[in-house]
Amino acid sequence: MARWEPNARERLEHSSLELFTERGYDQTTVAEIAERAGLTKRTFFRYFEDKREVLFGGQELLDRLFTEGITGAPEAATPLTAVGGGLNTVAAVFDAQRWKLARKRQVIVAGHRDLRERELLKGTRLVESMRVALRARGVPDTTAKLASTVGSLAFGAAFERWIEDESADFAALAGHALDELRKSAGELG
Amino acid sequence: MARWEPNARERLEHSSLELFTERGYDQTTVAEIAERAGLTKRTFFRYFEDKREVLFGGQELLDRLFTEGITGAPEAATPLTAVGGGLNTVAAVFDAQRWKLARKRQVIVAGHRDLRERELLKGTRLVESMRVALRARGVPDTTAKLASTVGSLAFGAAFERWIEDESADFAALAGHALDELRKSAGELG
Repeated sequence: MARWEPNARERLEHSSLELFTERGYDQTTVAEIAERAGLTKRTFFRYFEDKREVLFGGQELLDRLFTEGITGAPEAATPLTAVGGGLNTVAAVFDAQRWKLARKRQVIVAGHRDLRERELLKGTRLVESMRVALRARGVPDTTAKLASTVGSLAFGAAFERWIEDESADFAALAGHALDELRKSAGELG
Repeated sequence: MARWEPNARERLEHSSLELFTERGYDQTTVAEIAERAGLTKRTFFRYFEDKREVLFGGQELLDRLFTEGITGAPEAATPLTAVGGGLNTVAAVFDAQRWKLARKRQVIVAGHRDLRERELLKGTRLVESMRVALRARGVPDTTAKLASTVGSLAFGAAFERWIEDESADFAALAGHALDELRKSAGELG
Protein backbone atom coordinates (compact mmCIF):
# COMPACT_ATOMS: atom_id res chain seq x y z
CA MET A 1 0.00 0.00 0.00
CA ALA A 2 1.23 3.47 -0.86
CA ARG A 3 1.82 5.90 1.94
CA TRP A 4 0.01 9.17 1.84
CA GLU A 5 2.48 11.87 0.83
CA PRO A 6 1.56 15.43 1.79
CA ASN A 7 1.30 17.79 -1.20
CA ALA A 8 2.65 15.15 -3.55
CA ARG A 9 1.07 16.70 -6.63
CA GLU A 10 2.47 20.15 -5.88
CA ARG A 11 5.90 18.74 -5.08
CA LEU A 12 5.96 16.82 -8.35
CA GLU A 13 4.84 19.88 -10.30
CA HIS A 14 7.58 21.98 -8.73
CA SER A 15 10.32 19.43 -9.30
CA SER A 16 9.17 18.88 -12.91
CA LEU A 17 9.28 22.57 -13.74
CA GLU A 18 12.68 22.92 -12.07
CA LEU A 19 14.16 20.02 -13.98
CA PHE A 20 12.58 20.95 -17.32
CA THR A 21 14.10 24.41 -16.86
CA GLU A 22 17.53 23.17 -15.78
CA ARG A 23 18.01 20.22 -18.15
CA GLY A 24 15.38 20.62 -20.81
CA TYR A 25 12.06 18.79 -21.17
CA ASP A 26 13.36 15.96 -23.36
CA GLN A 27 16.34 15.29 -21.10
CA THR A 28 14.26 14.92 -17.93
CA THR A 29 12.94 11.52 -16.84
CA VAL A 30 10.04 10.70 -14.53
CA ALA A 31 12.51 8.95 -12.20
CA GLU A 32 14.46 12.18 -11.83
CA ILE A 33 11.31 14.19 -11.22
CA ALA A 34 10.19 11.82 -8.50
CA GLU A 35 13.64 11.74 -6.91
CA ARG A 36 13.90 15.53 -6.81
CA ALA A 37 10.50 15.64 -5.12
CA GLY A 38 11.55 13.00 -2.60
CA LEU A 39 8.90 10.63 -3.93
CA THR A 40 8.77 7.41 -5.94
CA LYS A 41 8.04 6.94 -9.65
CA ARG A 42 5.00 5.00 -8.53
CA THR A 43 3.70 8.05 -6.69
CA PHE A 44 4.32 10.17 -9.80
CA PHE A 45 2.16 7.86 -11.87
CA ARG A 46 -0.62 8.05 -9.32
CA TYR A 47 -0.97 11.75 -10.18
CA PHE A 48 0.20 12.04 -13.79
CA GLU A 49 0.06 9.77 -16.82
CA ASP A 50 3.42 11.02 -18.09
CA LYS A 51 5.70 14.04 -17.77
CA ARG A 52 3.75 15.96 -20.41
CA GLU A 53 0.66 15.79 -18.26
CA VAL A 54 2.44 17.81 -15.57
CA LEU A 55 2.33 20.70 -18.05
CA PHE A 56 -1.13 20.07 -19.50
CA GLY A 57 -3.06 18.42 -16.68
CA GLY A 58 -4.69 21.79 -15.92
CA GLN A 59 -6.72 21.58 -19.14
CA GLU A 60 -9.67 19.82 -17.55
CA LEU A 61 -9.90 22.37 -14.76
CA LEU A 62 -9.93 25.24 -17.28
CA ASP A 63 -12.57 23.50 -19.38
CA ARG A 64 -14.71 22.97 -16.29
CA LEU A 65 -14.33 26.53 -14.99
CA PHE A 66 -15.16 28.06 -18.37
CA THR A 67 -18.22 25.85 -18.56
CA GLU A 68 -19.33 26.71 -15.01
CA GLY A 69 -18.87 30.43 -15.54
CA ILE A 70 -20.80 30.45 -18.82
CA THR A 71 -23.55 28.22 -17.46
CA GLY A 72 -23.89 30.32 -14.31
CA ALA A 73 -24.27 33.64 -16.12
CA PRO A 74 -27.68 35.34 -15.72
CA GLU A 75 -30.31 34.03 -18.10
CA ALA A 76 -30.57 37.40 -19.83
CA ALA A 77 -26.81 37.68 -20.41
CA THR A 78 -25.70 38.16 -24.02
CA PRO A 79 -23.34 35.52 -25.48
CA LEU A 80 -20.26 37.67 -24.85
CA THR A 81 -21.35 38.56 -21.33
CA ALA A 82 -21.73 34.86 -20.60
CA VAL A 83 -18.24 34.30 -22.00
CA GLY A 84 -17.08 37.09 -19.67
CA GLY A 85 -18.56 35.05 -16.82
CA GLY A 86 -16.43 32.13 -17.96
CA LEU A 87 -13.30 34.29 -18.00
CA ASN A 88 -14.06 35.58 -14.50
CA THR A 89 -14.43 32.06 -13.17
CA VAL A 90 -11.22 30.93 -14.84
CA ALA A 91 -9.35 33.96 -13.45
CA ALA A 92 -9.33 32.32 -10.00
CA VAL A 93 -6.64 29.93 -11.27
CA PHE A 94 -4.28 32.69 -12.31
CA ASP A 95 -3.46 34.22 -8.97
CA ALA A 96 -0.16 35.53 -7.56
CA GLN A 97 0.75 32.10 -6.22
CA ARG A 98 0.38 30.50 -9.64
CA TRP A 99 2.36 33.19 -11.45
CA LYS A 100 5.91 31.92 -10.93
CA LEU A 101 4.98 28.38 -11.92
CA ALA A 102 3.00 29.59 -14.91
CA ARG A 103 5.93 31.66 -16.06
CA LYS A 104 8.36 28.75 -15.79
CA ARG A 105 5.88 26.57 -17.63
CA GLN A 106 5.49 29.19 -20.34
CA VAL A 107 9.23 29.29 -21.08
CA ILE A 108 9.39 25.49 -21.27
CA VAL A 109 6.40 25.23 -23.62
CA ALA A 110 7.58 28.09 -25.84
CA GLY A 111 10.96 26.43 -26.31
CA HIS A 112 9.68 23.06 -27.52
CA ARG A 113 7.82 22.46 -30.77
CA ASP A 114 5.68 19.52 -29.67
CA LEU A 115 4.68 21.35 -26.48
CA ARG A 116 3.78 24.49 -28.42
CA GLU A 117 1.56 22.37 -30.64
CA ARG A 118 -0.03 20.77 -27.57
CA GLU A 119 -0.72 24.27 -26.24
CA LEU A 120 -2.47 25.24 -29.48
CA LEU A 121 -4.59 22.10 -29.27
CA LYS A 122 -5.49 22.99 -25.69
CA GLY A 123 -6.77 26.28 -27.07
CA THR A 124 -9.04 24.53 -29.56
CA ARG A 125 -10.44 22.38 -26.74
CA LEU A 126 -11.21 25.46 -24.64
CA VAL A 127 -13.13 26.92 -27.59
CA GLU A 128 -15.10 23.69 -27.87
CA SER A 129 -15.95 23.68 -24.14
CA MET A 130 -17.21 27.26 -24.34
CA ARG A 131 -19.16 26.55 -27.51
CA VAL A 132 -20.96 23.62 -25.91
CA ALA A 133 -21.80 25.70 -22.81
CA LEU A 134 -23.16 28.52 -25.00
CA ARG A 135 -25.25 26.12 -27.09
CA ALA A 136 -26.73 24.79 -23.83
CA ARG A 137 -27.84 28.37 -23.08
CA GLY A 138 -29.72 28.40 -26.38
CA VAL A 139 -27.19 30.51 -28.28
CA PRO A 140 -27.53 29.74 -32.03
CA ASP A 141 -24.79 27.59 -33.53
CA THR A 142 -22.84 30.17 -35.54
CA THR A 143 -22.99 32.78 -32.77
CA ALA A 144 -21.87 30.18 -30.22
CA LYS A 145 -18.89 29.31 -32.43
CA LEU A 146 -17.95 32.94 -32.85
CA ALA A 147 -18.48 33.91 -29.19
CA SER A 148 -16.39 30.97 -27.94
CA THR A 149 -13.63 31.91 -30.35
CA VAL A 150 -13.76 35.49 -29.08
CA GLY A 151 -13.56 34.07 -25.54
CA SER A 152 -10.44 32.17 -26.46
CA LEU A 153 -8.84 35.27 -28.01
CA ALA A 154 -9.65 37.24 -24.85
CA PHE A 155 -8.20 34.48 -22.70
CA GLY A 156 -5.03 34.37 -24.80
CA ALA A 157 -4.57 38.15 -24.74
CA ALA A 158 -5.15 38.31 -20.97
CA PHE A 159 -2.75 35.46 -20.37
CA GLU A 160 -0.04 37.07 -22.53
CA ARG A 161 -0.25 40.27 -20.47
CA TRP A 162 -0.55 38.52 -17.12
CA ILE A 163 2.53 36.36 -17.70
CA GLU A 164 4.57 39.52 -18.31
CA ASP A 165 3.49 41.27 -15.12
CA GLU A 166 3.48 39.52 -11.75
CA SER A 167 1.29 42.15 -10.14
CA ALA A 168 -1.40 42.17 -12.82
CA ASP A 169 -4.95 41.03 -12.08
CA PHE A 170 -6.06 38.35 -14.51
CA ALA A 171 -9.78 39.09 -14.25
CA ALA A 172 -9.20 42.77 -15.02
CA LEU A 173 -6.98 41.92 -17.99
CA ALA A 174 -9.56 39.46 -19.32
CA GLY A 175 -12.35 42.00 -18.97
CA HIS A 176 -10.28 44.56 -20.81
CA ALA A 177 -9.38 42.11 -23.58
CA LEU A 178 -13.03 41.15 -24.00
CA ASP A 179 -14.03 44.81 -24.26
CA GLU A 180 -11.41 45.36 -26.96
CA LEU A 181 -12.70 42.37 -28.91
CA ARG A 182 -16.30 43.50 -28.52
CA LYS A 183 -15.27 46.82 -30.04
CA SER A 184 -13.37 45.05 -32.83
CA ALA A 185 -16.44 42.95 -33.61
CA GLY A 186 -18.15 46.20 -34.52
CA GLU A 187 -15.30 47.12 -36.86
CA LEU A 188 -15.11 43.97 -38.96
CA GLY A 189 -17.21 45.53 -41.72
CA MET B 1 19.90 10.70 -62.68
CA ALA B 2 16.20 10.40 -62.02
CA ARG B 3 13.91 9.99 -64.98
CA TRP B 4 11.13 12.48 -65.41
CA GLU B 5 7.89 10.77 -64.45
CA PRO B 6 4.73 12.32 -65.84
CA ASN B 7 2.27 13.40 -63.14
CA ALA B 8 4.34 11.76 -60.45
CA ARG B 9 2.93 13.94 -57.66
CA GLU B 10 -0.67 13.26 -58.65
CA ARG B 11 -0.02 9.54 -59.02
CA LEU B 12 1.57 9.41 -55.57
CA GLU B 13 -1.28 11.34 -54.04
CA HIS B 14 -3.83 8.98 -55.59
CA SER B 15 -2.00 5.82 -54.53
CA SER B 16 -1.50 7.19 -51.00
CA LEU B 17 -5.17 7.96 -50.53
CA GLU B 18 -6.15 4.57 -51.97
CA LEU B 19 -3.81 2.69 -49.66
CA PHE B 20 -4.63 4.76 -46.55
CA THR B 21 -8.29 4.00 -47.24
CA GLU B 22 -7.78 0.29 -47.92
CA ARG B 23 -5.20 -0.58 -45.24
CA GLY B 24 -5.20 2.34 -42.83
CA TYR B 25 -2.72 5.19 -42.57
CA ASP B 26 -0.42 3.54 -40.02
CA GLN B 27 -0.26 0.28 -41.95
CA THR B 28 0.81 1.89 -45.22
CA THR B 29 4.49 2.32 -46.08
CA VAL B 30 6.12 4.74 -48.50
CA ALA B 31 7.46 1.73 -50.43
CA GLU B 32 3.90 0.48 -50.97
CA ILE B 33 2.70 3.93 -52.04
CA ALA B 34 5.48 4.23 -54.58
CA GLU B 35 4.91 0.70 -55.87
CA ARG B 36 1.18 1.25 -56.32
CA ALA B 37 1.97 4.42 -58.28
CA GLY B 38 4.48 2.54 -60.44
CA LEU B 39 7.29 4.76 -59.11
CA THR B 40 10.27 4.37 -56.81
CA LYS B 41 10.61 5.37 -53.14
CA ARG B 42 13.25 7.78 -54.30
CA THR B 43 10.73 9.51 -56.54
CA PHE B 44 8.28 9.68 -53.62
CA PHE B 45 10.86 11.50 -51.51
CA ARG B 46 11.49 13.97 -54.29
CA TYR B 47 7.90 15.20 -53.82
CA PHE B 48 7.08 14.49 -50.17
CA GLU B 49 9.08 14.46 -46.96
CA ASP B 50 7.01 11.59 -45.54
CA LYS B 51 3.58 10.00 -45.97
CA ARG B 52 1.95 12.58 -43.71
CA GLU B 53 2.98 15.33 -46.07
CA VAL B 54 0.84 13.77 -48.80
CA LEU B 55 -2.15 14.74 -46.63
CA PHE B 56 -0.88 18.11 -45.42
CA GLY B 57 1.39 19.35 -48.20
CA GLY B 58 -1.45 21.58 -49.41
CA GLN B 59 -1.05 23.83 -46.37
CA GLU B 60 1.44 26.15 -48.01
CA LEU B 61 -0.76 26.63 -51.05
CA LEU B 62 -3.74 27.53 -48.83
CA ASP B 63 -1.62 29.95 -46.79
CA ARG B 64 -0.39 31.59 -49.97
CA LEU B 65 -3.83 31.84 -51.58
CA PHE B 66 -5.39 33.33 -48.46
CA THR B 67 -2.58 35.86 -48.31
CA GLU B 68 -2.88 36.75 -52.00
CA GLY B 69 -6.64 37.15 -51.81
CA ILE B 70 -6.49 39.37 -48.73
CA THR B 71 -3.59 41.43 -50.07
CA GLY B 72 -5.30 41.87 -53.43
CA ALA B 73 -8.61 43.14 -52.02
CA PRO B 74 -9.44 46.79 -52.87
CA GLU B 75 -7.77 49.31 -50.59
CA ALA B 76 -11.12 50.46 -49.23
CA ALA B 77 -12.30 46.93 -48.38
CA THR B 78 -13.29 46.31 -44.75
CA PRO B 79 -11.38 43.61 -42.84
CA LEU B 80 -14.11 41.01 -43.43
CA THR B 81 -14.44 41.92 -47.10
CA ALA B 82 -10.69 41.41 -47.48
CA VAL B 83 -11.06 38.03 -45.75
CA GLY B 84 -13.84 37.29 -48.24
CA GLY B 85 -11.29 37.99 -51.00
CA GLY B 86 -9.03 35.39 -49.39
CA LEU B 87 -11.83 32.83 -49.31
CA ASN B 88 -12.63 33.49 -52.97
CA THR B 89 -9.03 32.95 -53.97
CA VAL B 90 -8.79 29.75 -51.94
CA ALA B 91 -12.03 28.47 -53.46
CA ALA B 92 -10.18 27.74 -56.71
CA VAL B 93 -8.55 24.74 -55.00
CA PHE B 94 -11.86 23.17 -54.05
CA ASP B 95 -13.26 22.35 -57.46
CA ALA B 96 -15.16 19.30 -58.70
CA GLN B 97 -11.94 17.54 -59.65
CA ARG B 98 -10.56 17.89 -56.12
CA TRP B 99 -13.76 16.74 -54.43
CA LYS B 100 -13.28 12.95 -54.55
CA LEU B 101 -9.70 13.20 -53.28
CA ALA B 102 -10.67 15.69 -50.58
CA ARG B 103 -13.42 13.40 -49.42
CA LYS B 104 -11.12 10.38 -49.20
CA ARG B 105 -8.60 12.51 -47.34
CA GLN B 106 -11.27 13.74 -44.95
CA VAL B 107 -12.27 10.21 -43.93
CA ILE B 108 -8.63 9.24 -43.36
CA VAL B 109 -7.91 12.33 -41.24
CA ALA B 110 -11.13 12.03 -39.23
CA GLY B 111 -10.30 8.44 -38.31
CA HIS B 112 -6.84 9.07 -36.88
CA ARG B 113 -6.10 11.09 -33.75
CA ASP B 114 -2.68 12.43 -34.73
CA LEU B 115 -3.97 13.46 -38.15
CA ARG B 116 -6.98 15.21 -36.61
CA GLU B 117 -4.60 17.14 -34.38
CA ARG B 118 -2.44 18.01 -37.39
CA GLU B 119 -5.59 19.31 -39.11
CA LEU B 120 -6.39 21.55 -36.14
CA LEU B 121 -2.85 22.92 -36.19
CA LYS B 122 -3.22 23.60 -39.90
CA GLY B 123 -6.24 25.70 -38.99
CA THR B 124 -4.22 27.79 -36.53
CA ARG B 125 -1.61 28.40 -39.22
CA LEU B 126 -4.25 29.59 -41.67
CA VAL B 127 -5.48 32.06 -39.06
CA GLU B 128 -1.94 33.31 -38.61
CA SER B 129 -1.43 33.76 -42.38
CA MET B 130 -4.64 35.77 -42.63
CA ARG B 131 -3.76 37.84 -39.58
CA VAL B 132 -0.38 38.80 -41.02
CA ALA B 133 -1.96 39.73 -44.37
CA LEU B 134 -4.59 41.88 -42.60
CA ARG B 135 -1.95 43.61 -40.47
CA ALA B 136 -0.07 44.42 -43.67
CA ARG B 137 -3.24 46.20 -44.88
CA GLY B 138 -3.10 48.36 -41.75
CA VAL B 139 -5.88 46.56 -39.87
CA PRO B 140 -5.36 47.10 -36.11
CA ASP B 141 -4.01 44.13 -34.18
CA THR B 142 -7.11 42.99 -32.28
CA THR B 143 -9.38 43.44 -35.30
CA ALA B 144 -6.90 41.51 -37.48
CA LYS B 145 -6.91 38.65 -34.96
CA LEU B 146 -10.67 38.58 -34.83
CA ALA B 147 -11.20 38.93 -38.59
CA SER B 148 -8.71 36.14 -39.38
CA THR B 149 -10.44 33.90 -36.87
CA VAL B 150 -13.78 34.67 -38.49
CA GLY B 151 -12.17 33.81 -41.84
CA SER B 152 -11.10 30.46 -40.49
CA LEU B 153 -14.59 29.74 -39.12
CA ALA B 154 -16.07 30.63 -42.53
CA PHE B 155 -13.54 28.41 -44.26
CA GLY B 156 -14.32 25.52 -41.90
CA ALA B 157 -18.07 25.88 -42.30
CA ALA B 158 -17.81 26.08 -46.10
CA PHE B 159 -15.52 23.07 -46.23
CA GLU B 160 -17.88 21.03 -44.03
CA ARG B 161 -20.77 21.70 -46.40
CA TRP B 162 -18.73 21.27 -49.58
CA ILE B 163 -17.37 17.88 -48.53
CA GLU B 164 -20.93 16.65 -48.07
CA ASP B 165 -22.15 17.74 -51.50
CA GLU B 166 -20.18 17.03 -54.66
CA SER B 167 -22.11 19.56 -56.70
CA ALA B 168 -21.74 22.46 -54.26
CA ASP B 169 -19.78 25.57 -55.18
CA PHE B 170 -17.13 26.33 -52.59
CA ALA B 171 -16.98 30.07 -53.23
CA ALA B 172 -20.75 30.38 -52.78
CA LEU B 173 -20.67 28.35 -49.56
CA ALA B 174 -17.79 30.45 -48.22
CA GLY B 175 -19.61 33.67 -49.06
CA HIS B 176 -22.71 32.41 -47.32
CA ALA B 177 -20.76 31.29 -44.24
CA LEU B 178 -19.04 34.66 -44.04
CA ASP B 179 -22.39 36.45 -44.23
CA GLU B 180 -23.74 34.31 -41.40
CA LEU B 181 -20.70 35.11 -39.27
CA ARG B 182 -20.96 38.82 -40.07
CA LYS B 183 -24.52 38.69 -38.82
CA SER B 184 -23.47 36.74 -35.70
CA ALA B 185 -20.81 39.36 -34.97
CA GLY B 186 -23.66 41.82 -34.54
CA GLU B 187 -25.38 39.48 -32.08
CA LEU B 188 -22.54 38.83 -29.67
CA GLY B 189 -23.79 41.48 -27.26
